[in-house]
Amino acid sequence: MSLIDALNWRYATKKMNGQPVDQEKVDQIIHAAQLAPTSSGLQPFKVIVVTNQELKEKIAPIAYNQSQVIDSSHLLIFAAQENYSEEGIDGVFNRMNSERGLPLNTTDDYKAQLKKTILSKSAEENFEHAARQAYIAFGIAIAEAAVLKVDATPMEGFDGPSLDQLLGLKEKGLKSVTLLPLGYRDEANDWLANLKKVRKPLNEFLIEFK
Amino acid sequence: MSLIDALNWRYATKKMNGQPVDQEKVDQIIHAAQLAPTSSGLQPFKVIVVTNQELKEKIAPIAYNQSQVIDSSHLLIFAAQENYSEEGIDGVFNRMNSERGLPLNTTDDYKAQLKKTILSKSAEENFEHAARQAYIAFGIAIAEAAVLKVDATPMEGFDGPSLDQLLGLKEKGLKSVTLLPLGYRDEANDWLANLKKVRKPLNEFLIEFK
Repeated sequence: MSLIDALNWRYATKKMNGQPVDQEKVDQIIHAAQLAPTSSGLQPFKVIVVTNQELKEKIAPIAYNQSQVIDSSHLLIFAAQENYSEEGIDGVFNRMNSERGLPLNTTDDYKAQLKKTILSKSAEENFEHAARQAYIAFGIAIAEAAVLKVDATPMEGFDGPSLDQLLGLKEKGLKSVTLLPLGYRDEANDWLANLKKVRKPLNEFLIEFK
Repeated sequence: MSLIDALNWRYATKKMNGQPVDQEKVDQIIHAAQLAPTSSGLQPFKVIVVTNQELKEKIAPIAYNQSQVIDSSHLLIFAAQENYSEEGIDGVFNRMNSERGLPLNTTDDYKAQLKKTILSKSAEENFEHAARQAYIAFGIAIAEAAVLKVDATPMEGFDGPSLDQLLGLKEKGLKSVTLLPLGYRDEANDWLANLKKVRKPLNEFLIEFK
């Protein structure tokens, strides 16, 4: 199936049937997110996977009781870094050079410039930047789920601070930005399952300079 | 080719060879972006395609003379709405209901709640929210380009306000957030072409609650 066909097949599943997704498929969805490009390769976010049913039940009210939180087999949470740090940037460049068999100082000029730019910005600006990187991976994870015919529901409707507190994310310097429950559609009980996918037509979506 | 294979094949191409990408492939990349899910289906962004070489040459210095701007055949620009509007929200829901053959008032309660939430937020908050939606589509467009073996370079390094002025985006209520030049790698002259792709290992990327 082409990616376009997969994107046409997927929809924001409103009712899941509780059937579990194979761990192998979940691993591929996480791997797609891990392969997503990010600004200077910093990957300033983490993916959290919740399979613990008790914990999902505690998360449900924080996500306004959307049933997919409980009926999914794997609840993914994308959480962005609250800020960048000098140590974090060093870690990324050290790994990169080391895995490429290059001297660790290969990228020193680029890294110094990057640190100067990033570390002079406010935590709020850097968090927004980190969140945007997480959304690239979120988009790619949604695409991979669709290719694997795994249903997924992109969700921003939840109380971030409460979720962060429940999962201890603040202590890890993270803030949750999106949820992505993975499971299978309960077609008979999902009001959205058979409604037409509607998008803006090209004349409202595209601007061309020829 | 699986999407994972495509994501492993792609990289942020630093030097393109000037070979043009077939319009049909570009259309598919744009269509993938158009199919991306967005919050309440609002699609609060546009994709701009620049093929005009003179205009690309004017954009190059705004993007710090990154050569891909000129050597790509199609320069995509993702531009997010500066804010949401009541008319814009009405337009989305009217189209949705109309294309689904439903009465236009079907979603009135949901829409009223959505307007109340969104329109009480600051323009800054709404722009950041719109930008994040654009990044979902940006991620999916990157994935589709990779599947089609089209090279693409995700770029945030450019002077947004200058680009917006050049393209008259402010008058359209838009702000550019990312560039995605499309073309083909010039492998012999691209320092990044044969370097290993490096990502954080799972133990730094993933948190599990089992």
